[in-house]
Amino acid sequence: MTTVNISGYTYGTAQVSPSPLKMGDLENLKKAVLFDAEDEKYLRMAGQVLADQIEDVLDVWYGFVGSHPHLVYYFTDGKGNANSEYLAAVRKRFGQWILDTCNRPYDQAWLNYAHEIGLRHHRTKKNKTDGVNSVPNISFRYLVAFIYPITATIRPFLAKKGHSAQEVEKMHQAWFKSVVMQVALWSAPYVKDGDF
Amino acid sequence: MTTVNISGYTYGTAQVSPSPLKMGDLENLKKAVLFDAEDEKYLRMAGQVLADQIEDVLDVWYGFVGSHPHLVYYFTDGKGNANSEYLAAVRKRFGQWILDTCNRPYDQAWLNYAHEIGLRHHRTKKNKTDGVNSVPNISFRYLVAFIYPITATIRPFLAKKGHSAQEVEKMHQAWFKSVVMQVALWSAPYVKDGDF
Repeated sequence: MTTVNISGYTYGTAQVSPSPLKMGDLENLKKAVLFDAEDEKYLRMAGQVLADQIEDVLDVWYGFVGSHPHLVYYFTDGKGNANSEYLAAVRKRFGQWILDTCNRPYDQAWLNYAHEIGLRHHRTKKNKTDGVNSVPNISFRYLVAFIYPITATIRPFLAKKGHSAQEVEKMHQAWFKSVVMQVALWSAPYVKDGDF
Repeated sequence: MTTVNISGYTYGTAQVSPSPLKMGDLENLKKAVLFDAEDEKYLRMAGQVLADQIEDVLDVWYGFVGSHPHLVYYFTDGKGNANSEYLAAVRKRFGQWILDTCNRPYDQAWLNYAHEIGLRHHRTKKNKTDGVNSVPNISFRYLVAFIYPITATIRPFLAKKGHSAQEVEKMHQAWFKSVVMQVALWSAPYVKDGDF
């Protein structure tokens, strides 16, 4: 994997909070979303397909968030002022997240970083990574809701490199499964003790 | 809507706990999953398509849960004994949930019943509706995880009544959006105060 230098991107370092889950828990979660070795294969294919389209994908996602005041709200000071530096810093990590979703092995380091991403949406760590003064917490219901746009809008990009309809479909299903698993993992900091 | 008599099915009654959300919140949630009037139209179509296939859908879903000990666990006493009466009682309401997802107007009564469903997964109300002695809480991560199988496995059933590929796709996307919204709503009892 290419070494990346992105502000606040701490994947695989000691700065990442440990996940409450272990590999056995992840295996059970994979079964619940029917994720297997074939999905890993198609995620790697998706990683190649998406590699030079990351900025275009992010343009779609940021366009979507930016067009809805109740969504861009989470990048504001709570008084209607969006923080463009905050938006830009998150965008770089969001692009890397696309690549990590496709290319990283889903091991303990991946589990831990998924937990870290959850903490950074939740009031535990929101704003701290970028040292910004923004609203303190992303309402949990929108983490779940975003499964839809993040899944639906990736499909046209997966179809842009001449793969067969079946390959596009398999890449898309693998992506869908991974997004669902990751939102499940991101939810841990939000859920009451013992209920996760 | 046909009057139904299903044990524990309290839709629209005073026994349902009120949702913490109001219609304005639902409108915002709909926007986050791109749900609009066209989706309502295609959910109604899906309701007609699925009406005589409910038991077949439930066979698939119960077969999936039943084949995974860590999933059927939530219908057990925690010592490996699944409660067949509990499974059967939930199954009837699950079938009705398919129809409600397709046919009900998404109004305050629907919001309230979605909250009630969340409470019945969470330790707040799990087991109480059916008066059973089962494990006290469904781990939240599996509520999110189930978005995948509940969405992916419905597609073949939507395609069984001779509709065009485009109609099947639109029914499926509307279903996907609705399932994501509902899991977002079901999460409320699990999430820490003020973080939902």
